[in-house]
Amino acid sequence: MKKVYMDYGSTTPVDKEIVEEMIPYFNQIYGNASSIHSFGIKANEAIEKSRKKVANLLNANSSEIFFTGGGTESDNMAIKGISFLDHNKKKKNSKGPHIITSSIEHPAVLEPCKYLKKLGYIVKYLPVDKYGIVDLTDLKNSISKNTFLISIMFANNEIGTIEPIKEIGKIAKENNIFFHTDAVQAIGKIPIDVKKLNIDLLSISSHKIYGPKGVGALFIRRGININPIIQGGGHERGLRSGTYNTPGIVGIGKACELLNTNLKKHIEYLKKLRDKLINDVLKNQETYLNGHPEKRLVNNAHFRFTAIEGESLNMMLNDKGIASSTGSACSSKKLEASHVLTAIGLKPEDAHGSLRLTLGKENTVEDIDYVSEILPKVVSHLRKMSPLWNR
Amino acid sequence: MKKVYMDYGSTTPVDKEIVEEMIPYFNQIYGNASSIHSFGIKANEAIEKSRKKVANLLNANSSEIFFTGGGTESDNMAIKGISFLDHNKKKKNSKGPHIITSSIEHPAVLEPCKYLKKLGYIVKYLPVDKYGIVDLTDLKNSISKNTFLISIMFANNEIGTIEPIKEIGKIAKENNIFFHTDAVQAIGKIPIDVKKLNIDLLSISSHKIYGPKGVGALFIRRGININPIIQGGGHERGLRSGTYNTPGIVGIGKACELLNTNLKKHIEYLKKLRDKLINDVLKNQETYLNGHPEKRLVNNAHFRFTAIEGESLNMMLNDKGIASSTGSACSSKKLEASHVLTAIGLKPEDAHGSLRLTLGKENTVEDIDYVSEILPKVVSHLRKMSPLWNR
Repeated sequence: MKKVYMDYGSTTPVDKEIVEEMIPYFNQIYGNASSIHSFGIKANEAIEKSRKKVANLLNANSSEIFFTGGGTESDNMAIKGISFLDHNKKKKNSKGPHIITSSIEHPAVLEPCKYLKKLGYIVKYLPVDKYGIVDLTDLKNSISKNTFLISIMFANNEIGTIEPIKEIGKIAKENNIFFHTDAVQAIGKIPIDVKKLNIDLLSISSHKIYGPKGVGALFIRRGININPIIQGGGHERGLRSGTYNTPGIVGIGKACELLNTNLKKHIEYLKKLRDKLINDVLKNQETYLNGHPEKRLVNNAHFRFTAIEGESLNMMLNDKGIASSTGSACSSKKLEASHVLTAIGLKPEDAHGSLRLTLGKENTVEDIDYVSEILPKVVSHLRKMSPLWNR
Repeated sequence: MKKVYMDYGSTTPVDKEIVEEMIPYFNQIYGNASSIHSFGIKANEAIEKSRKKVANLLNANSSEIFFTGGGTESDNMAIKGISFLDHNKKKKNSKGPHIITSSIEHPAVLEPCKYLKKLGYIVKYLPVDKYGIVDLTDLKNSISKNTFLISIMFANNEIGTIEPIKEIGKIAKENNIFFHTDAVQAIGKIPIDVKKLNIDLLSISSHKIYGPKGVGALFIRRGININPIIQGGGHERGLRSGTYNTPGIVGIGKACELLNTNLKKHIEYLKKLRDKLINDVLKNQETYLNGHPEKRLVNNAHFRFTAIEGESLNMMLNDKGIASSTGSACSSKKLEASHVLTAIGLKPEDAHGSLRLTLGKENTVEDIDYVSEILPKVVSHLRKMSPLWNR
């Protein structure tokens, strides 16, 4: 059976070239990068090269890149790291230290915020419009003198909507507020320049950009201090302790390097495929696109189908060899309607009838044709059994 | 030049067999383990198999094993995870919530304790005797009704001393106090049975047992709840969020499986090599062993040499192809005397004149012979230049 993987938004395979680059660091250059003998020194050199590669992709300085265990850890480190600074904690003495985020963030941002709320912080969740875009006026109006952090994602992981990051960066800067963005989905699909965009902290993950799982990075603008969430031997200038994952770090470095050389071509290729997919699928009856028609990730297509149950659709597509998802992989096993789809105003039944197809560089026009052929058949089959159809 | 790696206590090369087992998970079985399509299901199956293998090595149940990004994260998760539970935090209203640890813990334990102290917790650092063993009477006397956690390492990472874990487990149980142990160094060198030893939480790391860097595990006894330090998509039953590092997890699983089948032989082999090394090196003048003569890790030899500067010794050994360390790799780049050596009563000059050699399964009798031949020459050369020699 033909196998079509269209769940690159959940994770990507690791590039052969990247695996090859990692291999020697498992058992040839295996020293602890903190050791002062030759085995350690070589590992350390590889890590610093990798740091430079990550920095280059973001137009950051090497000293502004901190390696982590993944995107979720990067988000936690940024948000709690800023929040637990003494001068921000102390704001509790006034009306409460204030964080602004959006209602459609990834759980890696929402859950730390929920935790901070329990600790006495005040969290404002900005609503979004029907496309998933945060309202800048609302953002401006929400700022108070206690606001010390704005955390708004670069692009949404479910519906692919791209947020007005440049404008948010400007507002944050004007108000002297730290600006963190979760760029886990955006990186590799949008050129990112942290300087031009006035971003203070930015999270990325390796396994969404053809690098290995278990490694991520956090950009922290020079001059910003944060409180570490993982304390110990003092690695990463005290901000993230733990023996360096040399192969993983080499992997994320190589992934960033490859993107940096191919980004424009990569984006164009994905966009062409995505536009064809959206165009083909929307030809079917009572089929709609979630998210913004233009301001969306070049690899994201998110549909809803009247009278369809998304989980069943996923499973039947899987039976036909197509890997898709309803929302994010992290919440695939949960049954509640997606908080993102609810936030853009979908009724629960429409939210449950949604499907995410996320493309990657290994997808071809033939894959799109296959999905465009199979998908309507499966939808039609499911509708025949649906009590909501043929009302 | 002959290359002899004797820094297995800092990190180990990854077994070829383990790398081979990991490889398919980079770009064949690459799905997100939380996805419900076939790519994800296969990854999830691999993770659950791995969990079972880790559990088997510790005589734990699979459901008691939680995967992390490494040993340092496991320690942080255990200590802060227990400390941040509401009922432990509330102890602040009385004389203060109370943690007992030792003065010779790894920074991955000491630093979280230091942080908790800043937050109002009271931390008792048990002193140790000249061998590095904690005093059980002192432990018993330190317990108060506010004590909720004892965290004592299984074996010390610098001098290799093994702590009386069984007795500590018994004391903790009798007093209804959680018992966490950092077993990062002990695992693979001592058989560990968490049930028999009354251990509630136990940290391990993959890269000290021939598995990959960037992955660890925390055993949490069934029925114990902790507060997560990394929050997000709800992975690991909500205790550690973040996309599963499938290759890494497969790696730590395989490492535990290999140890489980070879443990006795592995231990005997290391012990024979270590005894020969210690015996040979102690023949030299003004050369002493740090740590306990018997209650020590089978792969650890820790010497001190009168009138020697350890850093120089390390570097000169490196020039002869020998990889060693002064203490732990994490602190290799720091200049203060080791807190462990200070705690066992060494004078600063003796602490600075110490050398750690940690053996692994790839070491041979020839390696021991080489080091036993080179080491006295280097020591003698350094002493000629030392103002402390020939007083």
